[in-house]
Amino acid sequence: MITRILDKIKQPDDLKQYNTEELKGLCEEIRAYLVDVCSTHGGHLGSNLGIVELTVALHKVFNSPSDKILYDISHQGYVHKILTGRKDYLNTLRSYQGCSGFLQREESSHDHFGAGHAGTALSAGLGFAAARDQRGASEKVISIVGDAALGCGVSLEALNNIAETTDDMIVILNDNKMSISPNVGALSKYLNRIITDKNYRHVRENVKQFLTKIPKFGQAIRSGVAKVEDAAKSILVPGAIFEELGFHYIGPVDGHNLDSLIPILEAIATDKKPVLLHVMTEKGHGFHEAESCPERLHGFKKKVPAEPDAVPQPSVKSFSQSFGDAACQLASKDSRVVSITAGMLSGTGMTVFKERFPDKTYDVGIAEEHAVVFAAGMAANGLRPIVAIYATFMQRAMDCVYHDVCLQELPVIFCLDRAGLVEDGPTHHGIYDIGFWRSLPHIHIMQPRDDSEMKAMMDLALILDHATVIRYPKSSSADLTCPRAKVELGKSEVLREGTDAVIWAVGRECELALQLAEDLQKKDFSIKVVNARFLKPFDKEAFLADAKAMPMITLEDHVKTGGLASIAAELFVENKISKPYLAKAYPEAEVITWGKVDKLRELYGMTSDKLIEEITQFLDDSK
Amino acid sequence: MITRILDKIKQPDDLKQYNTEELKGLCEEIRAYLVDVCSTHGGHLGSNLGIVELTVALHKVFNSPSDKILYDISHQGYVHKILTGRKDYLNTLRSYQGCSGFLQREESSHDHFGAGHAGTALSAGLGFAAARDQRGASEKVISIVGDAALGCGVSLEALNNIAETTDDMIVILNDNKMSISPNVGALSKYLNRIITDKNYRHVRENVKQFLTKIPKFGQAIRSGVAKVEDAAKSILVPGAIFEELGFHYIGPVDGHNLDSLIPILEAIATDKKPVLLHVMTEKGHGFHEAESCPERLHGFKKKVPAEPDAVPQPSVKSFSQSFGDAACQLASKDSRVVSITAGMLSGTGMTVFKERFPDKTYDVGIAEEHAVVFAAGMAANGLRPIVAIYATFMQRAMDCVYHDVCLQELPVIFCLDRAGLVEDGPTHHGIYDIGFWRSLPHIHIMQPRDDSEMKAMMDLALILDHATVIRYPKSSSADLTCPRAKVELGKSEVLREGTDAVIWAVGRECELALQLAEDLQKKDFSIKVVNARFLKPFDKEAFLADAKAMPMITLEDHVKTGGLASIAAELFVENKISKPYLAKAYPEAEVITWGKVDKLRELYGMTSDKLIEEITQFLDDSK
Repeated sequence: MITRILDKIKQPDDLKQYNTEELKGLCEEIRAYLVDVCSTHGGHLGSNLGIVELTVALHKVFNSPSDKILYDISHQGYVHKILTGRKDYLNTLRSYQGCSGFLQREESSHDHFGAGHAGTALSAGLGFAAARDQRGASEKVISIVGDAALGCGVSLEALNNIAETTDDMIVILNDNKMSISPNVGALSKYLNRIITDKNYRHVRENVKQFLTKIPKFGQAIRSGVAKVEDAAKSILVPGAIFEELGFHYIGPVDGHNLDSLIPILEAIATDKKPVLLHVMTEKGHGFHEAESCPERLHGFKKKVPAEPDAVPQPSVKSFSQSFGDAACQLASKDSRVVSITAGMLSGTGMTVFKERFPDKTYDVGIAEEHAVVFAAGMAANGLRPIVAIYATFMQRAMDCVYHDVCLQELPVIFCLDRAGLVEDGPTHHGIYDIGFWRSLPHIHIMQPRDDSEMKAMMDLALILDHATVIRYPKSSSADLTCPRAKVELGKSEVLREGTDAVIWAVGRECELALQLAEDLQKKDFSIKVVNARFLKPFDKEAFLADAKAMPMITLEDHVKTGGLASIAAELFVENKISKPYLAKAYPEAEVITWGKVDKLRELYGMTSDKLIEEITQFLDDSK
Repeated sequence: MITRILDKIKQPDDLKQYNTEELKGLCEEIRAYLVDVCSTHGGHLGSNLGIVELTVALHKVFNSPSDKILYDISHQGYVHKILTGRKDYLNTLRSYQGCSGFLQREESSHDHFGAGHAGTALSAGLGFAAARDQRGASEKVISIVGDAALGCGVSLEALNNIAETTDDMIVILNDNKMSISPNVGALSKYLNRIITDKNYRHVRENVKQFLTKIPKFGQAIRSGVAKVEDAAKSILVPGAIFEELGFHYIGPVDGHNLDSLIPILEAIATDKKPVLLHVMTEKGHGFHEAESCPERLHGFKKKVPAEPDAVPQPSVKSFSQSFGDAACQLASKDSRVVSITAGMLSGTGMTVFKERFPDKTYDVGIAEEHAVVFAAGMAANGLRPIVAIYATFMQRAMDCVYHDVCLQELPVIFCLDRAGLVEDGPTHHGIYDIGFWRSLPHIHIMQPRDDSEMKAMMDLALILDHATVIRYPKSSSADLTCPRAKVELGKSEVLREGTDAVIWAVGRECELALQLAEDLQKKDFSIKVVNARFLKPFDKEAFLADAKAMPMITLEDHVKTGGLASIAAELFVENKISKPYLAKAYPEAEVITWGKVDKLRELYGMTSDKLIEEITQFLDDSK
């Protein structure tokens, strides 16, 4: 792999010496390097391949870190990392103690704002701009946002607030017509019309020429020339919506052409008004070309997946798949069932549902709040919506679950994937939400231990009068080999009997609990294992009976505050139980990093080996 | 007061027999009745006076409840209530067990969707429309949204999603240029341009006539007539943004003129595309006219406040005022301090700050998520933003507090007003949030007991490296007469010594705790009172010492789950304390209704009388 120029770029200033032709070569080198890194470590290859020229052009024209370049979601920040002194470090991408898959304030002075959830770059950028204005300083603030993230509530709120707050901010709309699922929404269609409709643009040009040639036009509208310009703008300028919102709209421009990108960026840097630059890019740009030229990209064919950013299919059935199957099953037997997702059709396992029930599948785009209130409206009008969103993203819609669903006693089924620790790290862990759900009225919280239980819980949720939150991790959902009791509201399930201690586990942690019981058996401990199943309503009676009878251990994939450990503590105190109790969960006081989930669990003593040690000690102490 | 026609309207169908002239009379009667009701019970007089004609026209043209009329926020639903069989019931407005100040699904079959938070009507309406489409039914769905609520994230997400989801939905934009504070945002300015710019509209009309008269125009643009129409639309139609988002835009129309409103509603009822009808109304319409005609509105002058919807100034200093003063004090001594609110400048007590520091005051409109991320960006760029939002509305931005502030260790100060029970009821109680805040890393949670402590806590928050949540109720912040210790991070404060039991209280509950101690003294109980001050970091050491020494009582204005009672339970269990403990808080399993806060507190045994009884019993049992 040739990295002739790339090797010389230790910081962004280093690339300012190169001319456009040389920078084109740099882009090729970066592209090859990206393919190499991602073929080893995974990560968001496609979106980064799409932003190579734009990132190079930004660093050529602007001066990071004094100028602030902010990337939305920031998983398209690899090129930025490469150009800001982290080329080699990128080779530890997404691994424990290695390079984050996102931008991180603590990783580099060039990372001004971290982000793993979509849609924050405009608001944050405006914060940077307002702070600069307060100081009377003059650095530039550039927020780069994808077309999908533009449709999310935070972005739109910011878009509405920028022009009245500052006259110096650059928004770059990185329009690749894709988020993870193909984009939806009127705004997306609007952007599409701007780009694709040649006739539309041709007409505009003609009208413009036509109007300027007709002297009488001026007379007819003599009530004000400036007004005419304003009025004419919406016919002459493609981005009328953005102009109306107070931006100087420029575009669409080719995001892979440095010859035009660089001069345009240079020009807008001096604009006296917020600018929205509409850049067209192609996700995975250069990937297929690279494929056909293997000698330039050594090892390429061997390691890279068939399509950049394709979601790898797990070899065993995952909870996402279990959910998809269960949702299909519900829809087959009850015509009121529909499903809603927020831009994550494939990630949440809903692809199969969409194939079987296309007319009952609603992908609202990255718009979790709308997804929840939309579902509430459907439920209030007789449907039984299933809303599938990652646990961490559902935090965006906590108020809607409370205000629009729970308070109105609407039977919406929320299926929260990626509950628990995830490889992506802090911004994506689904370990903070139970405390809030548990504080709300009219809601049930369930966690299935495996595939069959997922189906049973979905079946139950369908006949309940109130909302249900079903939480599950990204892991195998293979059925556990142990007794299986019928799922009944608020009832736990005994997975294994025992007399020396009892482990109450929830969700997939039941598997670990059973393993622990098995291993502890070898040390002559007889351990009972109970599947809590419900965090609300919680099976107090069974729990109290166990807590009074023997030492209690709880096991959960959540912070210690708010979930099973809190429930247990409340019950111990309420019922004046003073028996030994060991709560295993994650600390809420520290940020849990990224890396393989097994590695992260090991760090917090949540593996079989470490737990056997800890539990043995606990049982010895409890004697 | 004349209610000749009004008395005959028992349900919406009853008004269909009246002609437009008669309905104008009905509007006058309703207006008088509204003034009468609100002068007795308070409530949102202005916004309801503004929507009289529109509501009458809607019920004249559409058939509720089969057609679904949804009001955003719904505190402008009084007229709807009057017309749907609740005229007399409205006379119990906002009182305990009386008529809700909002629409309520359980109150009437004409209330399709309840709402106390802004911006949900479009999403919910789309849910109703999608459910109807699924059933192949044909009822109409009409969502009425104010111009301020249109700028909030949920509304904008929905606006982006409507046209691709249904072709049969009516959005009525009730544009009165006001929410509670004057509106902000580019969208608001855009609406203003549409309405006010006569030249702009005049020009458009001229251009239209001009273009149609010129035959050559057609030749010049022969590439497609339909395209020309599309292109021309944005110059000919005022609501180009809405048209681009897939709506048929109609407006602006006078929302107080039944002669035009009724035929327009009749016409759009048959549209084959989502419609956005832009209606101009005046908040408080008819109020001043009514004022000058006292004989028609008996008792009017005497009872009604000078301005409809004016925020009444409490006779004693409130926490909102304490916050405003404290914020000013911070800004005076530290130039990095700025303040942000989300459309609630006056409600949050920030008016004084805006007067003193206009350039450091940011009202972003009803956009809590943006407010928080905007603050995060400011903090990341060196400012020290204070974000003032009601506790209940901050639920909209929970993810942003976590993802954009806590994870990045940014020192934003969140001041959550209306924490605790409020008169408005379920949608507005600030009693569900602590469980989530407590689950997060890098955050402090404080609750001041009075005015002086508010200042001290704000001072402390300013020098902390991480985010701070300061929660306080809507009540008097008058300084308590008791010892006052310096506020130190994570340290509680002893307010009164005692030996028989200890009450740990938080925030304004300290006042009640002191009162209880005083009253119990008369029964010969010696009660220690401690002000917890911090829920995170919590003063474990002092708490444990007390819990081990004597019976413990905790007192908080929050549900029992997540707050002080949960903390206490966790500490009791972790430290194997089996001493008597009484947790006083609200149940999370039931929805707490509306009514005077004192009445609500009484219901849940949170008054001095009831608590003395309960504590006496508890102490007797503990012996």
